[in-house]
Order: sequence, then C-alpha cells, then structure tokens
Amino acid sequence: MEIVALMAQKRRVIEAALFDYLPDRENLLNQAMRYSLFAGGKRLRPILALVSYEAAGGKEDEQILPVACALEYVHTFTLIHDDLPAMDDDDFRRGKPSNHKAFGEGMAVLAGDALMIDGMGLVTQSTAPPHFVQRALQEFARTLGAEGVTKGQADDLYGERRDPRFLRKIHLRKTALFIAFSIRVGALIAGSNDRLLDRLFWAGVLAGMGFQVCDDILDETSSREELGKTPGKDSDASKLTYPSVYGLKRSQRIAASYADRATKIFQSIGEDWNPLIALTRYLVKRRK
Amino acid sequence: MEIVALMAQKRRVIEAALFDYLPDRENLLNQAMRYSLFAGGKRLRPILALVSYEAAGGKEDEQILPVACALEYVHTFTLIHDDLPAMDDDDFRRGKPSNHKAFGEGMAVLAGDALMIDGMGLVTQSTAPPHFVQRALQEFARTLGAEGVTKGQADDLYGERRDPRFLRKIHLRKTALFIAFSIRVGALIAGSNDRLLDRLFWAGVLAGMGFQVCDDILDETSSREELGKTPGKDSDASKLTYPSVYGLKRSQRIAASYADRATKIFQSIGEDWNPLIALTRYLVKRRK
Repeated sequence: MEIVALMAQKRRVIEAALFDYLPDRENLLNQAMRYSLFAGGKRLRPILALVSYEAAGGKEDEQILPVACALEYVHTFTLIHDDLPAMDDDDFRRGKPSNHKAFGEGMAVLAGDALMIDGMGLVTQSTAPPHFVQRALQEFARTLGAEGVTKGQADDLYGERRDPRFLRKIHLRKTALFIAFSIRVGALIAGSNDRLLDRLFWAGVLAGMGFQVCDDILDETSSREELGKTPGKDSDASKLTYPSVYGLKRSQRIAASYADRATKIFQSIGEDWNPLIALTRYLVKRRK
Repeated sequence: MEIVALMAQKRRVIEAALFDYLPDRENLLNQAMRYSLFAGGKRLRPILALVSYEAAGGKEDEQILPVACALEYVHTFTLIHDDLPAMDDDDFRRGKPSNHKAFGEGMAVLAGDALMIDGMGLVTQSTAPPHFVQRALQEFARTLGAEGVTKGQADDLYGERRDPRFLRKIHLRKTALFIAFSIRVGALIAGSNDRLLDRLFWAGVLAGMGFQVCDDILDETSSREELGKTPGKDSDASKLTYPSVYGLKRSQRIAASYADRATKIFQSIGEDWNPLIALTRYLVKRRK
C-alpha cells in the first residue's frame, strides 16, 4: 500500500479509538482536553506504534490501540504545557488559539495533567500480557520524565542555548526518544525480543532526529497558515535550531542522512518493516 | 506500638527510599523536584499504603516501597501545580516559598510534570506480580486523572463554588479518593481479594473526608507559622470550606463522625487493621 493511503487508514482507526476513549462530556476539563486532542494532529506517534506492532506480527487491536492512543494523549499534554506563557508562550497551535488562550492558564495546566495521567491509565487497558504492559509503562515513564522529554524541555527553557552540543541533546530528549519509544513499544507489545527492540529503538532515534531537524526547517521556511503555529518562534534569538546553527542547506542534508541511517537498520531487519522505511521518509520530507 | 512511634518508624523507611529514588543531581529540574519532595511532608499517603500492605500480610519492601513512594511523588506534584499563580496562587508551602516562587513558573510546571510521570514509573518498579502492578496503575490513574483529583481541582477552580453540594464532591475528588486509594493499594499489592479491597476503599473514603474537613478547620484556626502555608487561603470569599458552610463546631463533629464510620469498617475486618484505626484518628485530630 502507498504510504499516504496507509497513514490515512491507520489515522482513521486511531481517531475512532480516541473518540471512544475520550467521549464528549459536559464539563470544562473534558472540553479543554478534547479541544487539543482533536485539533487535527497527524497522529504520527500512534501510527508508528500501530505499524510497528503489525510489522512485529501483532494481530489484536485491543492490545495495541490503548497504547497507541496513549502516545497521542501524552504528546498532546507536552504541547499544551510547552505553549504556556511561562514556557514557550505560544498563542497558536495547529491553526487555533493554544489551549491556555481558549481556556485560561489554570485549565490548560490541568488539561495537560489529565491527558498525561489518563494516557498512562490508557496503557493499562491493553490486553497484552501484564509483564509487557508493565514494561511498556516503565519505558514510557522513562521516555517522558525527569531524564526524558521533561528534562529536554527544562534544558530548552533554562539551558545554555547557544551551545550546539546542547541542541542535539535537547532534540534527542524532546523529540527523538519519544519517536523511538513509539516504534519500540509497538514491537514490545507484540512480544518481540530484546535484540529486535534495541535495533528498533536506534532506528527510531535516528528517524526522530531527522523528524526534529525537518521540524526546525519547516519552522524557518513556513508561514503561519501553512504551519498552524507561530513560525520562527523556535528560531528567535534566544533559541537554538538546526537552520540557525548549520544553515538551511546543511540542515536538509543532515535530516536526509538521519533518515538514511534509520532506513538501513529497518532494511537489515526484514521486509516486514518496509512500511517503517516509508514512514521515516515521510517524517523528514513532510511539508507541515 | 504507639501510633506516633509507628508513624515515625515508617516515615524513616519512606524517607530513605525517597532519597534512593530521587538522588541529588546537578541540574535545575532535579533540584526543583527535590525542593518540594523533601520539604518536610508528613508522608501520610505512603505510610497508609505501607501499614495497609503489612496489615494485609505483605512482607516484602521491594513490592510496596516503590508504590508507597509513588504516592508521595504524585501528591507533591498536585501541591506544586495547585500553588501556581494560575491556580490557587499560593506563595508559601510547608513554611517555605512555594516551588514557582523558588524556581519560576515554567520550572514549577515541569517539576510537577516530572514528579507525576516518574511517580507512575516508580510503581512499575514494584516486584509484586505484574497483574497487581497493572491494576494498581490503572486505579492510580483513575484516582488522579480527569475523573479524579484533577477534576476536583478543575471544579474547585471554575465550579459553582457557593453550592455546598459541590463542597463534598470537590473534597471527595481532591482528597478523599486519593487517601482511599493509598490504603487500598497497599492491600492490593499484598494480594487481598476484591471484597476486602472494596471495604478498605470505603473506609478510606470516610477517613479521607474526615482528613479534609480537619484540613479546612486547621486552615481556619491556624497561623502561618503553625501551618506552613498561607492560612485562610482556602476559606476566602471565593472558596468554599466546611467551617465557612457549617461553622467550626459542627465541622468538628462532622470530622469525628467520618472517623467513627471509618473505624467501624476497619474493626469489622479484624484486629490486624488496628493501626489503620489509630491512623484514622490521627488524620482527623492532627494539629497541622
């Protein structure tokens, strides 16, 4: 199947599941959570998990869908908190006012908190063997917590931003490890062995780095209408990005090189993993 | 053993474990997390879990300590976020500047996030059977998330605050369910059956309601030095409390009545649960 069609098909499955997990309720917290969760995200992380689960031989939606959707809950949590005035202070996200602009700061903090907590809770609903679920949650927390995404955001806020060595570390923590986990957890829930999980993890880190470099490039070259958020926000004087350090052309080569290295790993595993290669190419070549 | 001595002994065990789980590191996020986690909390929730685990026949620290300490991580997360300017806007907590006063708002949001996430991760380190761990995490997320503590805080922030029916609901969600879960999860990890778990849950809800009414009373009657946070903060015109609705004397009777009803349930289970009765009495009679 063509990658665009595959992504559209998986996205429909994810959307339907998300609607089931977070139905419309008459209270403000629920509305604030749904506002950001259903703001038109690409569902990349759940798609990666779903495709990886199937490539690893998994066959039961009830095992993987709660885990895949949890990734989107938690990704949405990071976006809401990152946009807060005390953080990146961004008024727009996915073409709409950001959560705190629509619901106020207090509610935005709580909507993020609830998506994080309920996301973790969603993982426990997987019907996979309990020791797989336990391990998935353990790695999920490690990916997101004080040594992972949250640390990346803290470094981004307060770190020595003019040092390019930090740029790679922040991108690794904020984005690449989460992308890598999304791929790895699909195979983990399907029961893959440690050796395969580790190779998938490294391929995922490379794909995730390429994805983030591409994000930096888009941020530099797009208008707000195309991007749905305020462009240039990530590349103002106080913030390091790949184009600001390496220039546009070299950044494009770096992104392509990350994707190539990820591709080689997926190829070495076997042709069941071809959809992951196509997804990796999409991650570094997308236009928004 | 006398309850004060028992609590002191358990508290030492918890403190040592917390130090192991969150060692001192040279970065700001770690410092912000430790600042609030080691601010002199009473460790009530972990103590309840530990005592309940032992009453239910549990004998292995490695099963219960990660879960017990996770309760303190997550409790600390709720305090940090509740104190934020966009929420209750409190400058003091446990006799010190609140987290955002010491580290700035952005870092306080992140320190809370990391304590929440790593708290969930800590639960996965329990050596109890994986299906117990999975269930503990499922109930933990339900207790904390969009139908639990976070919902209580959202209602507290934006709800119809002048309606006493809401007061009980908010107290239930913000405090009592978390106390109830702390007691229940100890027995759950020890392998107790559903019938016992449900009785413990109800006893815990009653004890937790008594605890919160006592908190309201202390807030009304204490100075900042005694309380360690700004008193009267919870009882200003915009906020409902038990004393503001029922008066001081009647509130004291309500707290005692909750404790009595919890006590009856613990008594009906058996004398192994006597320490929980003593703890319940402490919860509604403490002076800070």
